[in-house]
Amino acid sequence: MRVAQLGDIMTFKTQRRIEFSDTDLGGIVHFSRFFVFMEGAEHAFLRSLGTSVDFKIDGHKAGWPRLSATCDYRSPARFEDVLDIEVRVLRQGRSSMTYGFEFTIEGRSVASGKISAACCLLDLPEGLKAVPIPSEIAARIKAS
Amino acid sequence: MRVAQLGDIMTFKTQRRIEFSDTDLGGIVHFSRFFVFMEGAEHAFLRSLGTSVDFKIDGHKAGWPRLSATCDYRSPARFEDVLDIEVRVLRQGRSSMTYGFEFTIEGRSVASGKISAACCLLDLPEGLKAVPIPSEIAARIKAS
Amino acid sequence: MRVAQLGDIMTFKTQRRIEFSDTDLGGIVHFSRFFVFMEGAEHAFLRSLGTSVDFKIDGHKAGWPRLSATCDYRSPARFEDVLDIEVRVLRQGRSSMTYGFEFTIEGRSVASGKISAACCLLDLPEGLKAVPIPSEIAARIKAS
Amino acid sequence: MRVAQLGDIMTFKTQRRIEFSDTDLGGIVHFSRFFVFMEGAEHAFLRSLGTSVDFKIDGHKAGWPRLSATCDYRSPARFEDVLDIEVRVLRQGRSSMTYGFEFTIEGRSVASGKISAACCLLDLPEGLKAVPIPSEIAARIKAS
Repeated sequence: MRVAQLGDIMTFKTQRRIEFSDTDLGGIVHFSRFFVFMEGAEHAFLRSLGTSVDFKIDGHKAGWPRLSATCDYRSPARFEDVLDIEVRVLRQGRSSMTYGFEFTIEGRSVASGKISAACCLLDLPEGLKAVPIPSEIAARIKAS
Repeated sequence: MRVAQLGDIMTFKTQRRIEFSDTDLGGIVHFSRFFVFMEGAEHAFLRSLGTSVDFKIDGHKAGWPRLSATCDYRSPARFEDVLDIEVRVLRQGRSSMTYGFEFTIEGRSVASGKISAACCLLDLPEGLKAVPIPSEIAARIKAS
Repeated sequence: MRVAQLGDIMTFKTQRRIEFSDTDLGGIVHFSRFFVFMEGAEHAFLRSLGTSVDFKIDGHKAGWPRLSATCDYRSPARFEDVLDIEVRVLRQGRSSMTYGFEFTIEGRSVASGKISAACCLLDLPEGLKAVPIPSEIAARIKAS
Repeated sequence: MRVAQLGDIMTFKTQRRIEFSDTDLGGIVHFSRFFVFMEGAEHAFLRSLGTSVDFKIDGHKAGWPRLSATCDYRSPARFEDVLDIEVRVLRQGRSSMTYGFEFTIEGRSVASGKISAACCLLDLPEGLKAVPIPSEIAARIKAS
């Protein structure tokens, strides 16, 4: 669901129900799972724009390896809670993207995070290589 | 393995081999797994001090819910690579701890990260409650 | 979604989109994820009956530790595929349940699996203890 | 560690310590993790033979997609327990392998499982294709 915000900034909203396997013996969601939740929301956002993270550039397998990821935890999420997740494009560079994420449960702040990723060719013999974001994808994100 | 460092700071070193299930369709380790690797190294460090993260305080279930977690990625790790992981105590507060982590593969920098966690009671009806780190545990970490 | 079937047997249907973190370097869904998918569908089924797997019996923490789990794989599932999942109660014992699962993608058979679980008290000092399924839960499952 | 057994059958033994992220809110290891543990032991076995599951056949990406996987659970495993894992080759076909696994903790039976896998080319346009196990790999497994 994409919704307009103040000042013409667009955000994307999605939801996710906490699963049993997301929890740990402390009885709450394992902290590493929020990074999976961020990625799931990022990909849902890209799908809403008609693009995907599994694509080719000039016949090469391309993708978005991560440059950095961070999460601040404010209150716990538990089994069967429904997380509201808001995705925002914080920065669009020539070959990189930064997304911000807000997690809430019924209005209570649970966590917020950030992911930066570089558009890369994945299948070169010399390893990963950052390349400019394909113009079609860049245009869709810019227009979001 | 605990080893002495310059200026009397101690670090803890451990290793971990990348598993098939750590990878994703990009052919490299999924970024969320580094948070699991950090936690595994943190717990190995605490075990080396003779303590654990699954403990009781005055009969209450206690633990270390995370306040924040961050990771910067420098180069990819792949299936069957052996990660060298270095753990360092960056800050020891009254009820919180901050750990730093360096990941390398045969000397090549792969990632570095940080986790902050609060010592909490987990089973109170009102939810999580931060409490001072038990003095026995605090003393062992300080002495590390 | 619960739907009637031939011979008065009820099945429960749900869907799930494959996430990036579900895949491995082979480019397909990691086989262990199907067990997480089965559990997610089982819990969605129980929610549809107004019950949950996180409950108490006489003040004790109760749950459904698994007795056995099995999966047969017929064709691969890939990133962003939408899995159709059908849940069926294969057997309801005094203290155990067996569920069957069928996974398809646009009508193509992907996998089928089975989970047996025992209703247990989880927090006794002597460990897990199987107990009769609470009559309220048993009645709801029987009536499904 | 490979050790001789009765009747000239060889088994491979390895160990694994339960991590925090392996557990769920029931306080025990999540049942799906045993499939990851089986795979980790299978790959350690193949490494001990000097082979890997990430390989090429005639320039094609090859691997071992699973045909079936099953696990029977006998007693719970908990955080920081050390699992003893025994791997046995149950059957070696022309293009498939079946492995058996026994999990114990200090002699107590925890679980046993089985995985069957087919040697496949993974990168053909028409999808996965089963092929004979390369003779070099087959010979090493047979000789194990």
